[in-house]
Amino acid sequence: MKVHVAKKTLAEALAHVERIVPARSSNPSLSLLRISTSADVVEMVGSNMDSDIRARIPADVGANGSFAVNAAVFAQVVRVLPADDVTLEFGDNDLEIVSGNYGTKLQLSAPSSAPEPTFPDAYPGEADASALSHALASVKYAAAVADFQAVFRGVKLEFSDSRTRAVASDGFRLAYFDLGGPTGLDEGVIAPARSIEELIKLLGDGPVKLALAEGRLCVQHGNYALNMKLMEGAFPDYQRVIPTVFPVSIQVKAAALSEAVNRVALMADKTSNNRVDLFIKEGTLRVTAEGSFGHSQEELQVSQEGTDSEIRLAYNAKYLTESLGPVAGEALVRFSGSNSSPSVITDAADPSYLAMVVPLRNA
Amino acid sequence: MKVHVAKKTLAEALAHVERIVPARSSNPSLSLLRISTSADVVEMVGSNMDSDIRARIPADVGANGSFAVNAAVFAQVVRVLPADDVTLEFGDNDLEIVSGNYGTKLQLSAPSSAPEPTFPDAYPGEADASALSHALASVKYAAAVADFQAVFRGVKLEFSDSRTRAVASDGFRLAYFDLGGPTGLDEGVIAPARSIEELIKLLGDGPVKLALAEGRLCVQHGNYALNMKLMEGAFPDYQRVIPTVFPVSIQVKAAALSEAVNRVALMADKTSNNRVDLFIKEGTLRVTAEGSFGHSQEELQVSQEGTDSEIRLAYNAKYLTESLGPVAGEALVRFSGSNSSPSVITDAADPSYLAMVVPLRNA
Repeated sequence: MKVHVAKKTLAEALAHVERIVPARSSNPSLSLLRISTSADVVEMVGSNMDSDIRARIPADVGANGSFAVNAAVFAQVVRVLPADDVTLEFGDNDLEIVSGNYGTKLQLSAPSSAPEPTFPDAYPGEADASALSHALASVKYAAAVADFQAVFRGVKLEFSDSRTRAVASDGFRLAYFDLGGPTGLDEGVIAPARSIEELIKLLGDGPVKLALAEGRLCVQHGNYALNMKLMEGAFPDYQRVIPTVFPVSIQVKAAALSEAVNRVALMADKTSNNRVDLFIKEGTLRVTAEGSFGHSQEELQVSQEGTDSEIRLAYNAKYLTESLGPVAGEALVRFSGSNSSPSVITDAADPSYLAMVVPLRNA
Repeated sequence: MKVHVAKKTLAEALAHVERIVPARSSNPSLSLLRISTSADVVEMVGSNMDSDIRARIPADVGANGSFAVNAAVFAQVVRVLPADDVTLEFGDNDLEIVSGNYGTKLQLSAPSSAPEPTFPDAYPGEADASALSHALASVKYAAAVADFQAVFRGVKLEFSDSRTRAVASDGFRLAYFDLGGPTGLDEGVIAPARSIEELIKLLGDGPVKLALAEGRLCVQHGNYALNMKLMEGAFPDYQRVIPTVFPVSIQVKAAALSEAVNRVALMADKTSNNRVDLFIKEGTLRVTAEGSFGHSQEELQVSQEGTDSEIRLAYNAKYLTESLGPVAGEALVRFSGSNSSPSVITDAADPSYLAMVVPLRNA
């Protein structure tokens, strides 16, 4: 059976699939891509147990078939094909790929040995793909990376009638981003941050369909479907710990503060939490750091509200700059007190985003 | 003592210096940069034992001084300075760096603890910097990387009255590039490929001065001086093994052949020397490879001279593509025979470059 497709279309589909399907696995069948053909579509399905992906490529096929091939090798070959068009010829034992003067024959495996994840028939929810992607990308930095309570390695999605909130926290900091409007879903779920990364890469423009089924968050967007296994456990009641009273607040260009903190933090010892100190008084913010090679400081002019006596707080420089990252213009930084009383960072022009950072002790 | 310099000038000098001076070393004094000031210049000197570097920055200083500072930290700070200008203020114990609203104080070490390499007073030789850089960059791929006879990890420079030749070989392949004209030197020397990499990065446009002194190749280019410790030992008599009789030769676009070999080699098993087979007959070159995932092939039309009966040769794909890399347009590929009789690749439009590759056995 022969299928003609554009190299670009096939390469793009395989690039998304390849991020899910492991190139090597202790379970070799996980490295396989299941390819199914029907009258007018080539469907490619893979899984890594945590996530499943399906890519559909419209093509004039005309016959049903089911095949399995090593996903990484297939993707590698397609990426470097010399011509704009590709012919895939599925035989009994091999898949012949021809493009220009180049041809290759890849060994096929038994289709029964490839993973066969199922995808929902219906997706009751819907959101705007680029808005959802932006929300997720704005909070994922705050998730824990490893060696921590499992739910902290996930991103919580709170679907409700009025809005969708994406939240991440590692216990020392937190970030959320609100999307307005209903999605049709009404539940809170936690997906692994790693799966959320894949989702962000998959989402382009247009609508994304959503479903919750069998302990999975399932999305469908354009020619792709992605299932993400959800995490069990309760996300902490974060709303309770976000302060609401702030003796001092400043407004400052997020990028300017972030750059100053990065510059000053060069002198901070990595063994002391990459610590920078902030001194705020009468509209002047001074950032300082010291370590075994010396010390450094930088001053910024800011709009200050609240008390005029000097306040001093210490932060992990990385936490501070990451929380400023999603703010495009002016950031509003509010201090609830000194000495490990949380600070809250928001976008002065957009209430969707909020970050909370706990200062270091003994500031 | 205060010195004002442009951030760009200082950052560029430190970028070159930083590549030589180790950020960490079992001998901590090697991480130090010796800074000397005189009436109108700031001089920075560092060493890694194999190479020494000196950067001179013209500046209105007005006083003599000698200082030592950690090179990596100094370079890191200068790279991120916020303003276009920098003020360096050398104190008794620290170097204060001020730029815009940012300031840092770096601890100084005793100048006597920093390396104090010497640089030649006179450089009797001279070459064109960009031509020398191009010659070295064209052959360095052929040097061995590790675990091999020491001289194979070097690049030989043959200075003579009529030309300078840069040669590298790892015993299985060889590349040379000839620069016309005398340099004023007349000797053959071998410098470590790692030092040659540094030299390539240092060389821009204009003249480069050359000297051989105390077992070192010393160059001076613009505001920089670089000493490279030479390697001992005899470079093999390579001229003897370059074949001169070729039953078959082809001419083909170097990039087209290189791309075809890379594409086809995707199927080659890495355990079989990344082997590709070339079949040449009546102006058609067929490249094939096979491995555990399948096999692949690609055909190219070539201009062929010599015998019309099919010839077949096998190569390590990487060796073949690397030898084609320095050829901008058409490559002339000449075969001295089958089965491990060397092949010679030259640039059809420029006799300066020659590469020799030994085919794999049992082709």
